[in-house]
Amino acid sequence: MQALEAAPDFEIVGIVRRNPEEEQPQELAPYKVVKNIAELGQVDVAILATPSRKVEETAKPILALGINTVDSFDIHTEILRLRSELSTSALANNAVSIISAGWDPGTDSIVRTMLQAIAPKGLTYTNFGPGMSMGHTVAVKAIKGVKAALSMTIPLGTSIHRRMVYIELEEGADFKEVEAAIKNDPYFVHDETHVQQVSCVNDVIDMGHGVNLTRKGVSGTTQNQLFEFKMHINNPALTAQILVCAARATMRQQPGCYTMPEVPVIDLLPGDRDQLIAELV
Amino acid sequence: MQALEAAPDFEIVGIVRRNPEEEQPQELAPYKVVKNIAELGQVDVAILATPSRKVEETAKPILALGINTVDSFDIHTEILRLRSELSTSALANNAVSIISAGWDPGTDSIVRTMLQAIAPKGLTYTNFGPGMSMGHTVAVKAIKGVKAALSMTIPLGTSIHRRMVYIELEEGADFKEVEAAIKNDPYFVHDETHVQQVSCVNDVIDMGHGVNLTRKGVSGTTQNQLFEFKMHINNPALTAQILVCAARATMRQQPGCYTMPEVPVIDLLPGDRDQLIAELV
Repeated sequence: MQALEAAPDFEIVGIVRRNPEEEQPQELAPYKVVKNIAELGQVDVAILATPSRKVEETAKPILALGINTVDSFDIHTEILRLRSELSTSALANNAVSIISAGWDPGTDSIVRTMLQAIAPKGLTYTNFGPGMSMGHTVAVKAIKGVKAALSMTIPLGTSIHRRMVYIELEEGADFKEVEAAIKNDPYFVHDETHVQQVSCVNDVIDMGHGVNLTRKGVSGTTQNQLFEFKMHINNPALTAQILVCAARATMRQQPGCYTMPEVPVIDLLPGDRDQLIAELV
Repeated sequence: MQALEAAPDFEIVGIVRRNPEEEQPQELAPYKVVKNIAELGQVDVAILATPSRKVEETAKPILALGINTVDSFDIHTEILRLRSELSTSALANNAVSIISAGWDPGTDSIVRTMLQAIAPKGLTYTNFGPGMSMGHTVAVKAIKGVKAALSMTIPLGTSIHRRMVYIELEEGADFKEVEAAIKNDPYFVHDETHVQQVSCVNDVIDMGHGVNLTRKGVSGTTQNQLFEFKMHINNPALTAQILVCAARATMRQQPGCYTMPEVPVIDLLPGDRDQLIAELV
């Protein structure tokens, strides 16, 4: 919402929620809240703020109305399948969908693709954190005896990560049992994992995150080309901003479904193209 | 040549030189060397290895033959004009030109554009080096009394650079006079410049270069988003590799002239698109 309001070229037509008849959060007060996007009249693009698993079923009926969609679908192994599915819907309805438009997958994917092009032989390592992993935190919360949880991702280099898990226990739960359950969970079993009990998980939550992406490779026959991309960012703020940029970019693509490396980066920006080239190239 | 030979999807048809009748460098022995590109038969794309000032006059007749061109034109203030000129030629002949396809302008421009999109308010600093500046070195060599020269660019942060100039003097030249002439040259007059006399410039030349590009900005209304892109690279090897990637990308664009941020980064890579998306997104 903040990223949309700060953008010079967007107008917020309204918000689609499951429960528009109930009381809405304070920050939605200025906006029209509806149950179905069709109630909003003319809409160019919908920004899907759903969990990844709901993206496909949410996007298809919107694309069927000829409305573009963007999402931050983050299950890396299912991106190709989603792209194929939404591509069919988009092409059939003359619409555009840009998927996985967050920072990873998303802008990190742009950097990985660019680095592989300019140093074709070599290894890229994506090191996440330090920061809160949403997926791992949800996995811990699902374990019996856990009242509240935070899973931090700590980068150890070469794409290896330590998991630091902070939990509050339910009355009567046994720490050793919960700790063992976490360490055996598929989300954690392959990583070095430390579990600590804290009195208040909420007191240690911080939405900051980051990445350190490195490549050492070969350009032509020249070895030892070194590249590094780093971020220290507020995770939800960056993801929202990227979604807004991708929403803008949907208006400039031919019908179809795209991932971020398939979109020219200049299409992410508002304003006059000549002026952008003069300032940025 | 090395970058082309290492690429799985290129065939070198030949090389255009001003003096094909004279003796050619050893590394060109395997190739057909001609005076005019028309002598090479069917050519898809020409990689222009000319000085920046010669790009326009070299590219136009090649585009007129319907052959795509790429170059590493590096005069930032003239990129828009070149783009407009070559766009006309390219569109008239159903060809594609990608200009300024080096690392700056070029891949750095992609990073700058992406960072401005994802943190729209804020400042980007591009810090070059440490490394050899071709332009500054040529400027020093043009000064009377200079026999050989090397100008190194040293980054001081916030896009401010120190120039370290190493020179050999001609017989009888006066160091103090030469030093003053260098410091007053338009290339150096605005920067902190140090001039040192050495016995052999060639002994201190190293083709390594680098960049440290930073942005601190705002996503939505969230301040203090921090980004950094760093490289330590062999300059000619990286530039050549980027030119080869851009040459590949010309085959995938609609007719016209493009700068690097206008080209989807995935078009820089060879291979099956689905597989690239699975591996890189």
